[in-house]
Amino acid sequence: MAVKAFQDYYPDHLSHCYGCGKLNEHGYQIKTVWDGDETLTTFTPKHYHTAVPGFVYGGLLASLIDCHATGSAAGAMYRKENREMNTEPSFRFLTGSLNVKYLKPTPIDCTLQIRGRIKEIDGKKVTIDVDVIANGVITVKGEVVAVQVPDKYIEDIMKSVAQK
Amino acid sequence: MAVKAFQDYYPDHLSHCYGCGKLNEHGYQIKTVWDGDETLTTFTPKHYHTAVPGFVYGGLLASLIDCHATGSAAGAMYRKENREMNTEPSFRFLTGSLNVKYLKPTPIDCTLQIRGRIKEIDGKKVTIDVDVIANGVITVKGEVVAVQVPDKYIEDIMKSVAQK
Repeated sequence: MAVKAFQDYYPDHLSHCYGCGKLNEHGYQIKTVWDGDETLTTFTPKHYHTAVPGFVYGGLLASLIDCHATGSAAGAMYRKENREMNTEPSFRFLTGSLNVKYLKPTPIDCTLQIRGRIKEIDGKKVTIDVDVIANGVITVKGEVVAVQVPDKYIEDIMKSVAQK
Repeated sequence: MAVKAFQDYYPDHLSHCYGCGKLNEHGYQIKTVWDGDETLTTFTPKHYHTAVPGFVYGGLLASLIDCHATGSAAGAMYRKENREMNTEPSFRFLTGSLNVKYLKPTPIDCTLQIRGRIKEIDGKKVTIDVDVIANGVITVKGEVVAVQVPDKYIEDIMKSVAQK
């Protein structure tokens, strides 16, 4: 049986994210899984995701780190409680802060690994360290603070738009 | 006469960036200009650039901040020398680090302002503070350290790919 990705457990109304929403046909649709104690996303950039020709656009790399990390935060909270990701109560995370260091240019002609380590769980905040790896070399490092929000918060902001 | 944006001065081989390259038909093609002592990019997200429905994807906002800041860094260096951006020697910048704080959800149904202030020029490093503004409200703040690189550095990494 294929391993379900974290994002496969997101409910439909939270599956429109450009980075990780399985229902966003224009988006990246990243998929994150556990690999031991690390979280792993693999992603093959399109030919037009360029910075300078031959190398990956830094904004895409920041985006991959972002969605990888919020997914990892949710995965970590469920794992901490030894629960499947489709069980209640749910854990939803938004990005509080995203810090990215570009160590060297990231070649575009390969499948990237985005690897996360859960650095700290502090109440509703989860800090995740992320490496972007191209051909075995770490090219970019990220740190994300993901903030847990209640389902009701998300429902309320969505309603505030729908009522306009 | 229309004001030329910073990106309009980039040479063709540096105009394929997904964020700001005028020759990348798939990309965002952002345009940055001076507005007094600040730099300004305006950008209208597509309907599919969503986080949750009604709000802008954080990875896109990080991308806009990134390209806005590297463009601003170049603009600042030319302005410091009181030169047009198509004069030699050229100033090219790559992103060294990108820090983004998400203060509140950014509504998608408006034209965003991305505003930059040159915080510091320290040799080859330019630090830029960036605000993302939606309907008059700052929703996201960024700080970017852009690093000046010689044209030859970019030519060399492009050649290293072409030779593969």
